[in-house]
Amino acid sequence: VTIRIGIAGYGNLGRGVELAVAGSPDMKVTGVFTRRNPETVVAQLDSTRVFSWASLLEGRDDVDVLILCGGSKTDLPEQGPQLARIYNTVDSFDTHAQVPQYFSIVDDAAQAGGNVALIATGWDPGLFSINRVMAEAVVPTGATYTFWGRGLSQGHSDAVRRVAGVAGGVQYTIPAEDVLDAVRAGEQPKLSAAQRHRRECYVVLEPGADPDVVSAEIKNMPHYFADYDTEVHFISAEELARDHATMPHGGTVLRSGVTGSVEGTHLENSQVVEYTLKLGHNPQFTSSVLVAYARAVHRMAQAGEAGAKTVFDVAPGLISPKSPAELRRDYL
Amino acid sequence: VTIRIGIAGYGNLGRGVELAVAGSPDMKVTGVFTRRNPETVVAQLDSTRVFSWASLLEGRDDVDVLILCGGSKTDLPEQGPQLARIYNTVDSFDTHAQVPQYFSIVDDAAQAGGNVALIATGWDPGLFSINRVMAEAVVPTGATYTFWGRGLSQGHSDAVRRVAGVAGGVQYTIPAEDVLDAVRAGEQPKLSAAQRHRRECYVVLEPGADPDVVSAEIKNMPHYFADYDTEVHFISAEELARDHATMPHGGTVLRSGVTGSVEGTHLENSQVVEYTLKLGHNPQFTSSVLVAYARAVHRMAQAGEAGAKTVFDVAPGLISPKSPAELRRDYL
Repeated sequence: VTIRIGIAGYGNLGRGVELAVAGSPDMKVTGVFTRRNPETVVAQLDSTRVFSWASLLEGRDDVDVLILCGGSKTDLPEQGPQLARIYNTVDSFDTHAQVPQYFSIVDDAAQAGGNVALIATGWDPGLFSINRVMAEAVVPTGATYTFWGRGLSQGHSDAVRRVAGVAGGVQYTIPAEDVLDAVRAGEQPKLSAAQRHRRECYVVLEPGADPDVVSAEIKNMPHYFADYDTEVHFISAEELARDHATMPHGGTVLRSGVTGSVEGTHLENSQVVEYTLKLGHNPQFTSSVLVAYARAVHRMAQAGEAGAKTVFDVAPGLISPKSPAELRRDYL
Repeated sequence: VTIRIGIAGYGNLGRGVELAVAGSPDMKVTGVFTRRNPETVVAQLDSTRVFSWASLLEGRDDVDVLILCGGSKTDLPEQGPQLARIYNTVDSFDTHAQVPQYFSIVDDAAQAGGNVALIATGWDPGLFSINRVMAEAVVPTGATYTFWGRGLSQGHSDAVRRVAGVAGGVQYTIPAEDVLDAVRAGEQPKLSAAQRHRRECYVVLEPGADPDVVSAEIKNMPHYFADYDTEVHFISAEELARDHATMPHGGTVLRSGVTGSVEGTHLENSQVVEYTLKLGHNPQFTSSVLVAYARAVHRMAQAGEAGAKTVFDVAPGLISPKSPAELRRDYL
């Protein structure tokens, strides 16, 4: 069985999906679907065809799972329910506060269409979410910490670039190593996200801009930087292009807790569970997660399931190309 | 709903299950079932009742899930199929080479009884197995490494204690830190288990025994020590009791690979996925995993499923006491 994958949207995420499917022997790309003029879009791989968005909305019979590669702010709230009515879908919706509402509208659409729609996968939300849930289920007495970075944050880089006098720039989120080490050692400090991370900005100034004014404006920006330990470094346009063109990211989910904690006994023992990602390319990794979950969505749809799902609903074996018997023999 | 848990066997694992259930508000212990005379067994908690093994075999209606706490060598091959015919079960069968055969006989029994029987859970096999499968599914191009320790190995400690002239002792398995760091940094060295670990033994001699002879016998023991970098330290019985009475363990599953690897492109990027456990008490942690999976088994049985299952078949949300809506709202 070859699973036929449609790619809805061709930015960083869509490009990563194209490559990840090429690396999966049980899958192939039907095509990229774009809202631009298809003739103006050149795919990374010669074998990838590019189709119009209109042909997607007409309903195609050569797509088993459609991977939605649009953004959470404006694309997915509209496309998610619209396309889940027509196709089995996978998306990376990541506006945490709106997940319940998004789940609900996509579920209605997927149920109506008899499709499976997996929302909010990737690494966070996604693999990190699974680790938060599983570690807490196994060690109910304790605290869970999520650290992000060292990594390039798109949202914070955009915020830096909107400051007057800034010609270009990037922002890295960096976990506080001393806090990470303390939690790894079994401590359970009470700290906010701002106390667990610091921020580093690399900024190219516009001609004549005052570095002190720009630096102060960045460091005092509410929500984004004001609560954080923030460093601003000024660099040249050449340095920005040479040293900051990659998209690394990653982070750590840590559960620090105890087992054997029953009143009146002296049987308590420390238990620490850690999950860490060191990603050379953030969108490529997210895309690879989407593609693995597309395999699960295909299998769940084949088994007659329908409706919206999250990573919490997907058995781990379903994302692997191996058979259950192979997994039992070689991976237990 | 309160899930009623039976505990079949009362060694280190059964004791851990008793405490883990006490820490789970949605569960309670029906009782411990022992092959010893129940009147001679005193449970850790006053509230825990102790019953005969015979009462278990008669079939009880106050056990929703039975957790099998016997060993893989002789207990489980007999008890697994026998009890899966009568009860929903969870076990920690860990003889890797015999998993397919054990799965098959337990599956037959569970299907016949209309029960769900989850085999081979804990941390390895168990949580480590899940991480091996998921990391490979997401990053298909790469290598997976499992490191064990630093931890007390029961099997290797037993081997040390069987050597003539040894009055007592323990063995710690220790990962080679330089190899761990290399894999964390994205390297993919080709190394055997013996090259990825070293072994430390702490030994109490019998009066008159020759330390050189004992040390040589341990270090040259085939399979257990001969291939490893092994240290033997001689200590007093007091030191053994004082410094080596706890049961720490843990380890790391590392996937080091690349995404974007398609011939003819230059889009390859390093991706490293790590899962690490630092366990203060090995049997208590394993027991906590068994108890969390008992919750999943109960839910799968309630949903009408039957047969043998592994951790690869269990959706992550099923092991959490939280509802799917709570998980979506708070953990994605």
